[in-house]
Amino acid sequence: MKNDLHVGLTIRLFTDRKAFGPGVAELLRRVRETHSLRAAALDMEMAYSKAWKIVKNAEESLDCKLLSTATGGKNGGGATLTPEAEQLLAAYDAYCRELNAFAAEKFQAAFAFLN
Amino acid sequence: MKNDLHVGLTIRLFTDRKAFGPGVAELLRRVRETHSLRAAALDMEMAYSKAWKIVKNAEESLDCKLLSTATGGKNGGGATLTPEAEQLLAAYDAYCRELNAFAAEKFQAAFAFLN
Repeated sequence: MKNDLHVGLTIRLFTDRKAFGPGVAELLRRVRETHSLRAAALDMEMAYSKAWKIVKNAEESLDCKLLSTATGGKNGGGATLTPEAEQLLAAYDAYCRELNAFAAEKFQAAFAFLN
Repeated sequence: MKNDLHVGLTIRLFTDRKAFGPGVAELLRRVRETHSLRAAALDMEMAYSKAWKIVKNAEESLDCKLLSTATGGKNGGGATLTPEAEQLLAAYDAYCRELNAFAAEKFQAAFAFLN
C-alpha cells in the first residue's frame, strides 16, 4: 500500500434530512470561543444567514435548543452554548474518535492488496 | 432519542488529496453495467470531463489502473473495469459495510441522551 494512503470519515446525524455534522459542530465550537454566531460564521467564511440556518435546522431536527442568546445587558448580548449543546458536542466528538479509531484499525487489512 | 435519528458515514481514501470515495465507486459500478464511462457519467448527471478526471485522479493517487478501454473492434470499443478495480470496489464495499455496522452498533449508547 502507498505509505500515505489513509481513510477519512465524515460522520453525520440524520433524521429525514441532515441534522448534525462537522460543519455545525465547528460553528458551535467557535461560538463557545467567540460568544457570537456572527463571529463564528465570519471565522468560517460563511454568511451569517447560512450559519443561522444550519444551527436552526440542527435545533429543529434534534428537537433541542443549542444556542442561548442574551440581548442587551453589560456585554451587549452574545451567544453561548446550552448545556444540551455541550453534551451533544462532547458525545459527537467521542463518537467520532471511536469510529475513526475503528476505521484506522481495519484499514490495513482491508486495503493491503494496494501495492 | 427521536426514533428516526441515525448516523450516515462518508468514507473516503486519501493520499495528500481525495483518492477514492462514494462518487468514483458509483462511477465504476455504472461503467461495469454500461461498458462506457460516458454513459456512466450521463447516468450520474455528471459531465464526461469531470467523470474522466475523477477516475484519472483515483488511478494516479492509488497508482493502479481502474478502467480498461478497447478502441474499435466488434463492439466499437467501450470501457471495462480492470481486475484491480473489481478488487478495490469489493474491498471498499466490504470496508463500508464493516464501518457502517460498527457506527450503527455504537450509535444508541452515544446519543441516548437526546430525548
